[in-house]
Amino acid sequence: MNFNLNEAIEVLETTPRTLEHFLSGLSPGWLHCHEGEGTWNAVEVVDHLIEGEKTNWIPRLEWIIQEGEGKPFPPFDRYAHLNKQKESTIEQKLAEFLTLRSENIARLRALVDDEMSLEQTGTHPAFGTVKARELISTWAVHDLTHITQIARIMAERYRTDVGPWVEYLGVLRK
Amino acid sequence: MNFNLNEAIEVLETTPRTLEHFLSGLSPGWLHCHEGEGTWNAVEVVDHLIEGEKTNWIPRLEWIIQEGEGKPFPPFDRYAHLNKQKESTIEQKLAEFLTLRSENIARLRALVDDEMSLEQTGTHPAFGTVKARELISTWAVHDLTHITQIARIMAERYRTDVGPWVEYLGVLRK
Repeated sequence: MNFNLNEAIEVLETTPRTLEHFLSGLSPGWLHCHEGEGTWNAVEVVDHLIEGEKTNWIPRLEWIIQEGEGKPFPPFDRYAHLNKQKESTIEQKLAEFLTLRSENIARLRALVDDEMSLEQTGTHPAFGTVKARELISTWAVHDLTHITQIARIMAERYRTDVGPWVEYLGVLRK
Repeated sequence: MNFNLNEAIEVLETTPRTLEHFLSGLSPGWLHCHEGEGTWNAVEVVDHLIEGEKTNWIPRLEWIIQEGEGKPFPPFDRYAHLNKQKESTIEQKLAEFLTLRSENIARLRALVDDEMSLEQTGTHPAFGTVKARELISTWAVHDLTHITQIARIMAERYRTDVGPWVEYLGVLRK
């Protein structure tokens, strides 16, 4: 096991600032490109991260504390963000993500200090028994998966532009 | 073709700051983990990006201007950084990358303004004829490929910690 709460929190803390620098001020061409019909653009990935802060990670940790393994988590709708209001700018969305994330990290620390053991278990609707520390690990890796996704979406836009170098660029490997 | 010089430069400009926020202050566990023997850790990826600023992108553009298709580029050693001095901290390396990148973007703009057409061609030792704009596109996508690599390396560290969620995390898909 490599999990360590403080190190997991390091990742959770860096992601909003990383994305702020990655995406703020990029042209619409970069923000709105995607990998084909039905795939997300970078803005939609940020919407999804915001949605997770609101309805997934902390609510599930609280569910574990309240219900234990008795009742499975309510399922998380991974597409919910696609139906929501999207009129704010990318900068506003990134600021919202930063605020929500900061609040959630504070909440996470408080839960672990006062109410919850990292070994505490709950029931995932598809996987069965899961541990609090697995959920927190997943939260951090979920950030990383979406950072790779954004970079991959952007790279795809230049697939033909790179000419023969496509062969050397791992991110364009299918 | 999606390539546009200003948009490519947007990516080149954001990468150093993105990596600064991604990596500064992370624990050694995150900075030194890797995906197995012979693979790079995040610090080595930054070393490789620094090496590219020194010996790959701008030197090759200048080579195109000077030699055209007459003489192929000298090969770029993708492992050169592994044999160099590595005593500086990650923060120092990131600062060096930022400085080199800023200088190189200024040089790129000057070359395109004064001396070089984006359609100008050179000879790659393995690929044959390549265009200046393909090289610049590749420079930008190369940043993106290494951002995905760093996120993937870090995610790998928690492969077993995420428990059954491994199934939902694209970054851990092999």
